[in-house]
Amino acid sequence: MALIVQKYGGTSVANPDRIRNLARRVARYKAMGHKIVVVVSAMSGETNRLISLAKEIMPDPDPRELDVMVATGEQVTIGMTALALMELGIKAKSYTGSQVKILTDDAFTKARILSIDESNIKKDLDNGYVVVVAGFQGVDANGNITTLGRGGSDTTGVALAAALKADECQIYTDVDGVYTTDPRVVPEARRLDRITFEEMLELASQGSKVLQIRSVEFAGKYKVKLRVLSSFEDEGEGTLITFEEENNMEQPIISGIAFNRDEAKITVLGVPDKPGIAYQILGPIAEANVDVDMIIQNTGADGTTDFTFTVHKNEMNKALSILRDKVQSHIGAREISGDDKIAKVSIVGVGMRSHVGIASKMFRILAEEGINIQMISTSEIKIAVVVDEKYLELAVRILHKAFELDAE
Amino acid sequence: MALIVQKYGGTSVANPDRIRNLARRVARYKAMGHKIVVVVSAMSGETNRLISLAKEIMPDPDPRELDVMVATGEQVTIGMTALALMELGIKAKSYTGSQVKILTDDAFTKARILSIDESNIKKDLDNGYVVVVAGFQGVDANGNITTLGRGGSDTTGVALAAALKADECQIYTDVDGVYTTDPRVVPEARRLDRITFEEMLELASQGSKVLQIRSVEFAGKYKVKLRVLSSFEDEGEGTLITFEEENNMEQPIISGIAFNRDEAKITVLGVPDKPGIAYQILGPIAEANVDVDMIIQNTGADGTTDFTFTVHKNEMNKALSILRDKVQSHIGAREISGDDKIAKVSIVGVGMRSHVGIASKMFRILAEEGINIQMISTSEIKIAVVVDEKYLELAVRILHKAFELDAE
Repeated sequence: MALIVQKYGGTSVANPDRIRNLARRVARYKAMGHKIVVVVSAMSGETNRLISLAKEIMPDPDPRELDVMVATGEQVTIGMTALALMELGIKAKSYTGSQVKILTDDAFTKARILSIDESNIKKDLDNGYVVVVAGFQGVDANGNITTLGRGGSDTTGVALAAALKADECQIYTDVDGVYTTDPRVVPEARRLDRITFEEMLELASQGSKVLQIRSVEFAGKYKVKLRVLSSFEDEGEGTLITFEEENNMEQPIISGIAFNRDEAKITVLGVPDKPGIAYQILGPIAEANVDVDMIIQNTGADGTTDFTFTVHKNEMNKALSILRDKVQSHIGAREISGDDKIAKVSIVGVGMRSHVGIASKMFRILAEEGINIQMISTSEIKIAVVVDEKYLELAVRILHKAFELDAE
Repeated sequence: MALIVQKYGGTSVANPDRIRNLARRVARYKAMGHKIVVVVSAMSGETNRLISLAKEIMPDPDPRELDVMVATGEQVTIGMTALALMELGIKAKSYTGSQVKILTDDAFTKARILSIDESNIKKDLDNGYVVVVAGFQGVDANGNITTLGRGGSDTTGVALAAALKADECQIYTDVDGVYTTDPRVVPEARRLDRITFEEMLELASQGSKVLQIRSVEFAGKYKVKLRVLSSFEDEGEGTLITFEEENNMEQPIISGIAFNRDEAKITVLGVPDKPGIAYQILGPIAEANVDVDMIIQNTGADGTTDFTFTVHKNEMNKALSILRDKVQSHIGAREISGDDKIAKVSIVGVGMRSHVGIASKMFRILAEEGINIQMISTSEIKIAVVVDEKYLELAVRILHKAFELDAE
């Protein structure tokens, strides 16, 4: 008998039929003798509907009041889910974030969980209830309703699993697990049975949309066993995200390939090579709340340096204006240019740690196809390159094949 | 400077435009220096939408979970209302029933308010905030969300006014006050400037839909000054519901005429006239949760009695079956019959106390028009008669005229 937290996203609770489906799955787990906590998101589209209502009244809505409104989305779903379970003859009880209580800071619309009072849930589980908790929301120390921001329901699931010392946190999505890469780009992409937490973190941050990065970090911090499963299939083991690297000789060196088409590259050419340049360039960008991803600096031969970084495509023009207006003359840069026709491809795998030559193999494979690498960035278990956008699919396909990810 | 509680129903918050209207009215009161608490219902139609969603999952929804879902209706409105006030530059803060907290018993879907913690609201008012409170909802001693049942938002408004010792509780509706009778039946019907609490109670319970009866009882109990106003007109004083009968010679004897088409009459003929008969007839009816309104018993000459009572039209057949199956042979009644082609007309006025002959005047007026009276029931300030349904409008019109209610 295990204690399992199951988290269902918006598409899994999109209408009464899907909620009934969810309830039948929970009933099967319950029949096996497990204790179940269900975490649900708002019905898909509901959160956006509520935000639109708020913006119709106040274009830039006060965050406290926005959270009051948005939190109703999950509150409706917990009621429906509890009812669907009762309709199957299962004892069920719903909790809002505030009722649990999931204590957060008071950063409305992007609050962070501080603690969870698991006592009432434990009591209910011991009394045979399935407990249904609203994802994405909490309450601050003054009793104000807060929301956790994008992907917050995953975080609620993981945090509850940690607080309850659950045996597993199952994340139900519209895919049946984590893949070696996006199957829409590489039809041979294969579902991974297992992946390490660190790999998942790199894949999540590199553009894989399966799990929200904050929830993966949270799971890592509290050593919560995560499993990604399809809410539309009843069979299948999904992908388990583990904390130990298996001592398995057969373990693949590379676990997956992530990619991202949403970035643009900004290059500052001919900057005098002296201390403080990076800050002088990126300081004004950060002040304008523009997120920066990759950063690369190369020293040239003539005492100047070229500085390149990537931002979201939507923010390229904003970043360019800032640099041209406030930075270029100030630091004496020769030229500032932007390119939004780029894509980032990353190979991820803990096997890299013990295998040399992975990076050079990656570069060789791309070179053989005539794909020019514009930027390179590496971490211990990841190599990311920026290439011309038009080569993205080709790059992913040939890397997937070369690293034998399509092999069973 | 006064402390005013303003309650707005579903049609007054039906869409963003109406909420902006509401905010402009609040702003005007605020500009006069008043402290304002706003109580809002769910946007019209929203409560029914949520109930339908619940019933789609579970035809007879668990009341605790139904309340969890339904309470979101007002939670959305408080957020929107607070935002609309902020958009006008007014400091505003919303509270759910649970946040206030409005403590109720645990009778889900029809909970009763036990106490209100007014401390936070008072603090906010002192700090210049307009406080926006969700009507219709509360929280029980275990932190469960409860709703107060039909008309509950009025009750929230009155209860808050009592707890805060407000100078006035203003109920904004889609009519501009309490009328001598329904203007759709009698075009000459006149808005009353004032009406006593007792009269309002009789009018409300006799079919007037302006105010929910529980909120009027509540106002009476806690001596809250109520005013009914239109949310669609900015002018007008509405109708004030007072506690003192004015010592005014000019005060009309009759304040208003109420009527009700929803009742049916059930007659038990030829019952042996002995103790316990009323209980033997009405006991099984009450056990089946059928509400009974008027009850009349007449002793006949032959040692038998006729027993008549009224129920809601929808429940006439249920009541008849109960009587025929379980009661008739048992008590030895000759005949049991039902009639749903009836209507009840009541004249109400505190002036009756000091004026004799009101009843006989009413009966004479009806007789002069050939309207037969089937049942009569009286209280200290009300006379109600049951007549054939087809005479309802005629009866109301001639009584309205005879008691000079259309006079200015």
